[in-house]
Amino acid sequence: MVGSVMAADLLGSRGWSVTVADASREALDRCLERCRRAGGGGKARLPKTVLADLSQAVEVTALAAKHDVVLGALSSHLAFNALRAVIEASKPYADIAFMAEDPTELSALAKRRGVTAIVDCGVAPGMSNLLAGAAARMLTPCNRIDIMVGGLPLERRAPFQYKAGFSPADVIEEYTRPARLVEHGRIVVKEALSEAELVDLPGVGTVEAFNTDGLRSLATTLKVPHMRERTLRWPGHIELMKAFRAAGCFQKEPIDVRGADGGMVRVSPLAVTSKLLFPLWMYDEDEPDLTVMRVIGEGRMAKASHGIRKGQPVRIIWDLLDVRDPQTGFTSMSRTTAFPCTITARLLASGGLRRPGVLPPELLAGERGYLEAMFGEHARRGVEYTSRIELL
Amino acid sequence: MVGSVMAADLLGSRGWSVTVADASREALDRCLERCRRAGGGGKARLPKTVLADLSQAVEVTALAAKHDVVLGALSSHLAFNALRAVIEASKPYADIAFMAEDPTELSALAKRRGVTAIVDCGVAPGMSNLLAGAAARMLTPCNRIDIMVGGLPLERRAPFQYKAGFSPADVIEEYTRPARLVEHGRIVVKEALSEAELVDLPGVGTVEAFNTDGLRSLATTLKVPHMRERTLRWPGHIELMKAFRAAGCFQKEPIDVRGADGGMVRVSPLAVTSKLLFPLWMYDEDEPDLTVMRVIGEGRMAKASHGIRKGQPVRIIWDLLDVRDPQTGFTSMSRTTAFPCTITARLLASGGLRRPGVLPPELLAGERGYLEAMFGEHARRGVEYTSRIELL
Repeated sequence: MVGSVMAADLLGSRGWSVTVADASREALDRCLERCRRAGGGGKARLPKTVLADLSQAVEVTALAAKHDVVLGALSSHLAFNALRAVIEASKPYADIAFMAEDPTELSALAKRRGVTAIVDCGVAPGMSNLLAGAAARMLTPCNRIDIMVGGLPLERRAPFQYKAGFSPADVIEEYTRPARLVEHGRIVVKEALSEAELVDLPGVGTVEAFNTDGLRSLATTLKVPHMRERTLRWPGHIELMKAFRAAGCFQKEPIDVRGADGGMVRVSPLAVTSKLLFPLWMYDEDEPDLTVMRVIGEGRMAKASHGIRKGQPVRIIWDLLDVRDPQTGFTSMSRTTAFPCTITARLLASGGLRRPGVLPPELLAGERGYLEAMFGEHARRGVEYTSRIELL
Repeated sequence: MVGSVMAADLLGSRGWSVTVADASREALDRCLERCRRAGGGGKARLPKTVLADLSQAVEVTALAAKHDVVLGALSSHLAFNALRAVIEASKPYADIAFMAEDPTELSALAKRRGVTAIVDCGVAPGMSNLLAGAAARMLTPCNRIDIMVGGLPLERRAPFQYKAGFSPADVIEEYTRPARLVEHGRIVVKEALSEAELVDLPGVGTVEAFNTDGLRSLATTLKVPHMRERTLRWPGHIELMKAFRAAGCFQKEPIDVRGADGGMVRVSPLAVTSKLLFPLWMYDEDEPDLTVMRVIGEGRMAKASHGIRKGQPVRIIWDLLDVRDPQTGFTSMSRTTAFPCTITARLLASGGLRRPGVLPPELLAGERGYLEAMFGEHARRGVEYTSRIELL
């Protein structure tokens, strides 16, 4: 879903030759089909495709060795080993995987190899990290960072008012995994789906924000006393998901029930619920999705800027509102996730980002021209980040 | 649940000896325990108990033959055969089972045996039928009969705001089985959970009424052009149940999912949902339940009465609001269901009801003194039916 957008985007640059690797011929063909459509049909430039088992480090290293820069869009459970394999090949890397492991454990290895690997380099995590990092630099002190982000269907349909822009299993995981937030400088854990609150966003209307476990590296890289990430849904969805959770439908622990064949079977209620919900949560072909993100930083201006004096208490607000691109057919979620990675990969390839290590994007907020390149290159692709500063 | 109340109620009459039969020793012991508590502990009169397989007609007939009157409170799938077996024993019968079969098919047999068998003789079906029958007699023409009934927990707790006073499987069946209504003299079928509407009831507050398949015999016995039965829930419950239905959670048709042991298993989503919901929907010990019923008849007064002239368009409204009895411990649902049956059984035993056949209660609305006996005997037990007439 995201890899196709990456390939199509990179092929848009003169002089780039692009290889897409996957374990499934079907997935590769789907990628070619998407690149063909996005590129305008018959005249479209297409990537080279390679059938490869990317769960095997040796295959990843061999492929990486043949290329100048590598982009990662793998399943989260393959991502950590793939990251190590790319570093072993001494190639720069930009990756969007939401891996469970701590990728910075490989930072020392990356430094030894002289490799720059940017991880969590999508929209959220990704642009959210970069903007949080920017807020932390622009404000002294920065007291608060508040991230709200959601992928939503443009058309709201009862009862769920939701479609899943990525794996629905990961969506339900968001509804059950306790959320880590930072309050008063300490990491606190809150229940999934907790503190749901209505929020008005311009161009969107009223949405509902609830705590999710999305801070990831920010919880430790930034010294900001209050930080949270919340996910956005159309109002009503969270209440419904709480009822499904209360009913036990999201329970992983198996129960014994009478099977269709008469005998007792052990089955996880979550497996049944997932099987039932996934087709209902799939986007229809060409159904428009929205990506909505707001990142807020609060604190005092670190230096005079934008006509505001140093030390002035302010709130910096970045907003993203993007809709599916009818021309390329790419969903908004796949575009907004792919572009931070392709833009970063271009910079890595051109030598515009050289700091060795495994780095989440907030650590690049101080790299000269990076934030500006991100905004400008996104805008060129029709994805508009806006910002404003409110005096407090 | 209901049989215990029947036994305790009958034991309250001097001169009655009561036998309770069940296939389960545990159920019989539970019945004894409940009768003991209801009767005030050590001094309580107790029923005789008989372990018997009531799915066997010969056992039912043999037991019925030894008694003067029989009350039925069996599972719906046993009820039709038990009805026949009681008729074969030539004993009067009052039954509350919600059987799928048409019990009046046995009416000819009952007439040959000189037996009076009153079926659907609980609260709804039961008192609702009797009141509908009374409305049809009091009004000429009777244009509309509207029945609303529900068993509700007194305390509303999120997210379900519901507990099941009887088998939760039957509750979900109510949420999925299409509802038969009568409109313009024709039987029409509407989707389960359809036409949900908020209704204010005195002493209760706002509840939500939705179409259920509860007319049963009324759809054919009464010639009233508009009739419907609706079930009552606290507002919000229906919307939630619609979402569960939309998710597929109430689907009987099995699906293939990965079982806890790794292999694929075939399981009905309804079986999983039932298993999950049933413990959540069980009343806590001594948790108070409400029974709420309203029966409305609309039409013109058949004769001058209550100071209203013949031919006056009126609305007759009967209301029931009952709460769990803390003294006996019996739930409201079990009391309001058992009492119509025990009151009727007393009349059958005393010769106060003699019409042979298998009869739903609406056909007894013209029996001299029956309706008055029902109201008076309910009131003696603390269950108050109120009525009023509005001029239209």
